[in-house]
Amino acid sequence: MQEIKELMERAGELVESRSFAELKNLMKELPPQDVAAILSELPREEAAPLFRLLPKDQAAEVLVELDPDQQAALISAFSDRELASILDEMFLDDMADLVEEMPAGLVKKVLKNTDPASRKAVNDLLKYPKDSAGTLMTPEFVDLRRQMTVRECFDRIRATGPDKETVYTCYVTDERRRIQGVVSVKDLLLASYETPVSEIMETNVITIRTTDDKEEIAHTFDKYDFLALPVIDGEDRLVGIVTFDDAMDVLQEENTEDFEKMAAITPSEKGYFEVSVFTHAKNRILWLLVLMVSATLTGNILSHYEAAFATIPVLVAMIPMLMDTGGNCGSQASTMVIRGLALGDMKPRDFLRVWFKEIRIALIVGTALAVINFGRVLLFYHGNGQVPTVLLAFITSLTLFLVVLVAKTLGTALPMLAKRIGLDPAIMASPLITTVVDACSVLLFFSIACAVLHLTV
Amino acid sequence: MQEIKELMERAGELVESRSFAELKNLMKELPPQDVAAILSELPREEAAPLFRLLPKDQAAEVLVELDPDQQAALISAFSDRELASILDEMFLDDMADLVEEMPAGLVKKVLKNTDPASRKAVNDLLKYPKDSAGTLMTPEFVDLRRQMTVRECFDRIRATGPDKETVYTCYVTDERRRIQGVVSVKDLLLASYETPVSEIMETNVITIRTTDDKEEIAHTFDKYDFLALPVIDGEDRLVGIVTFDDAMDVLQEENTEDFEKMAAITPSEKGYFEVSVFTHAKNRILWLLVLMVSATLTGNILSHYEAAFATIPVLVAMIPMLMDTGGNCGSQASTMVIRGLALGDMKPRDFLRVWFKEIRIALIVGTALAVINFGRVLLFYHGNGQVPTVLLAFITSLTLFLVVLVAKTLGTALPMLAKRIGLDPAIMASPLITTVVDACSVLLFFSIACAVLHLTV
Repeated sequence: MQEIKELMERAGELVESRSFAELKNLMKELPPQDVAAILSELPREEAAPLFRLLPKDQAAEVLVELDPDQQAALISAFSDRELASILDEMFLDDMADLVEEMPAGLVKKVLKNTDPASRKAVNDLLKYPKDSAGTLMTPEFVDLRRQMTVRECFDRIRATGPDKETVYTCYVTDERRRIQGVVSVKDLLLASYETPVSEIMETNVITIRTTDDKEEIAHTFDKYDFLALPVIDGEDRLVGIVTFDDAMDVLQEENTEDFEKMAAITPSEKGYFEVSVFTHAKNRILWLLVLMVSATLTGNILSHYEAAFATIPVLVAMIPMLMDTGGNCGSQASTMVIRGLALGDMKPRDFLRVWFKEIRIALIVGTALAVINFGRVLLFYHGNGQVPTVLLAFITSLTLFLVVLVAKTLGTALPMLAKRIGLDPAIMASPLITTVVDACSVLLFFSIACAVLHLTV
Repeated sequence: MQEIKELMERAGELVESRSFAELKNLMKELPPQDVAAILSELPREEAAPLFRLLPKDQAAEVLVELDPDQQAALISAFSDRELASILDEMFLDDMADLVEEMPAGLVKKVLKNTDPASRKAVNDLLKYPKDSAGTLMTPEFVDLRRQMTVRECFDRIRATGPDKETVYTCYVTDERRRIQGVVSVKDLLLASYETPVSEIMETNVITIRTTDDKEEIAHTFDKYDFLALPVIDGEDRLVGIVTFDDAMDVLQEENTEDFEKMAAITPSEKGYFEVSVFTHAKNRILWLLVLMVSATLTGNILSHYEAAFATIPVLVAMIPMLMDTGGNCGSQASTMVIRGLALGDMKPRDFLRVWFKEIRIALIVGTALAVINFGRVLLFYHGNGQVPTVLLAFITSLTLFLVVLVAKTLGTALPMLAKRIGLDPAIMASPLITTVVDACSVLLFFSIACAVLHLTV
């Protein structure tokens, strides 16, 4: 990686000093992702002429990596001829992604400068439902026929390969485009030229459907380590392939979504800086409101015990510790369960097994926290005639122990319940669990305090 | 995916009815990951004989996918000859992973049944530092020489390919094993047989070092969509390759680690069910203790205002809502920043830009929450002579607005600060931010209440 880092540092210097002639030569050595990064650093009026200097095949790859805003700016600056020559080098799934992000006027300009076959293919891709395999796939794959020999297969790969996103996995189809088998270039290379492909192809083909959810597909790639998977339509016809790099992107997007959901944020598909302040606010406010109003319950429980803490105000000082620790314990359990469910390591039917484990963990954790809290209260607080310090420590530690048990139980149960009833378990994360556990903590604490101290409410 | 799901359902039935003859035939049709899943469902004394029925190449792949416990049980049951024939089919990086997980006695048994070259290679792999590229790579790759023609390259791939993890990316090296260039099988296929490989190879090769951190490598794969990357040692010699599937696994592990850290859990590399109750407890208790003791601060602030809430107990009922909302707002900001830093979308030097954005988001969110909270207080609470309901609503809403600003600021600043001083930003997540924001919320609330209501403390 050292080489690229050095080249990028050099590029940074050249951008600073506006040495575009040298920068142009350097950019040819860099992967498209890095060229895109360099162009993003430049103001638009400088980026456009530099982009024009790129060879057309590199230009196509770089364009795909840019932000939608920059793509739009470049495309509107292109002449029809320039645009056509770049689009000619672009894979169809990338072109569909590009078209999807463009304002209507530019979509027209893009499609006008594409050959009719590609235009039709892009239009077909755009028709698939959001988040489906259809939107991930590319219709460019190598198809073979079962009567071909290995030599003929190589001839076909040589003839059609340059335009395909991957040539390493080839599909043997019949005249109705139904998959008969799959063969890797490795298998072809290791066979003799005269072998019929039907003898070496794998007939047990794992396929996905155009309507399959893209997250499920990403997990399939993660599990089986495929390079590519074939996509079939409602009539079992092979219509495209999904490649591992697209699956990797989906996996990362999905993880980001889970992080956001687990922090009570409505996920956004765009990057942080691309999203407007207003949209960020909108994505965050819904859950904050729900949780704020829910916290009224805990407030009401506290109000109910007004007489208790009006008499013994030191009780109030214990509330933050109980609420925080309860929330943290619940979050720990729910995070383990949400992640376990997401990775497929846990299923809702494992509830009892997980709960039993969490309860034993809670017994250890609860005991340790209770003991240390006992010391903490003795050290930092002073009781009075009504409540000796030792009694205060006892009440707090007992509550703490029970709160840990309750928190771990809720943290395990709520995400699994969500999954069972078809909701996303990620919503049952820290914020919601904390709110629920808070109410339980406060209720437990004052119930115990009133019982032990013989207070009436 | 339908086919596999159906086969797995059928396998489940066959396991239930113990129809092992039929199960054996069905397992041949399944990917190794699914065969491993079937074997995991069976008690050991039934799994072992079934495993023995697998063809040797499939057996090697399945063994790799099993849990360490099961691997150990199977390996100790194998005869030396059986073990040798399975190990013969195994890739060296997988063998190194296997050896790493085994107890000492079994390590000896494994290495004894490996040919000397593989044994040396595995030993070499095991010497690399934890989490380095060396532990991810496999020494099995296709190496070519620059004077070879495309035809000779194919001959070499055919001769050495069967034992290589991937043949699709080949490396051209000199006699001292330094990389001269890289060529893909696609490029070889599209060139004529007589072309010297030196004419079509890419000389600008992105390499990684054996000592590079595996997370960084995973991000490189994610960014550039490589199939494989070459690994060089301290003397620039090519010693192995890392393939995309290993990078994908690292990416997922790293995400899991971040989820755990962000929930105040010390990450574990093993699966939930593999980790003992005691270790789970140990992994969770450290942060709980730190945070519990930190919450003493908030408790002390509350104690300081005892006189205030002893006079006006309804103030206490507002605390949970303020603490929860503050914590949630802070978590939202810190999650966005932690994820942005992890994906490379944000750098610590973007602090002012992010903060400015978060402040504007906080102004919108804070205003909305304050308005709705005003209504909430009017609706659910009743003031008294000392504090009219409207005044209570005003104090709470003003505090809430300020808490949102503070929370977003801390949520932005703390993860970036952590990154800047070389700590993992993920520790500055919900639990820690919540604890810090709690103290601020309580302090703000009572300061404002005392000022507005002219209370003395």
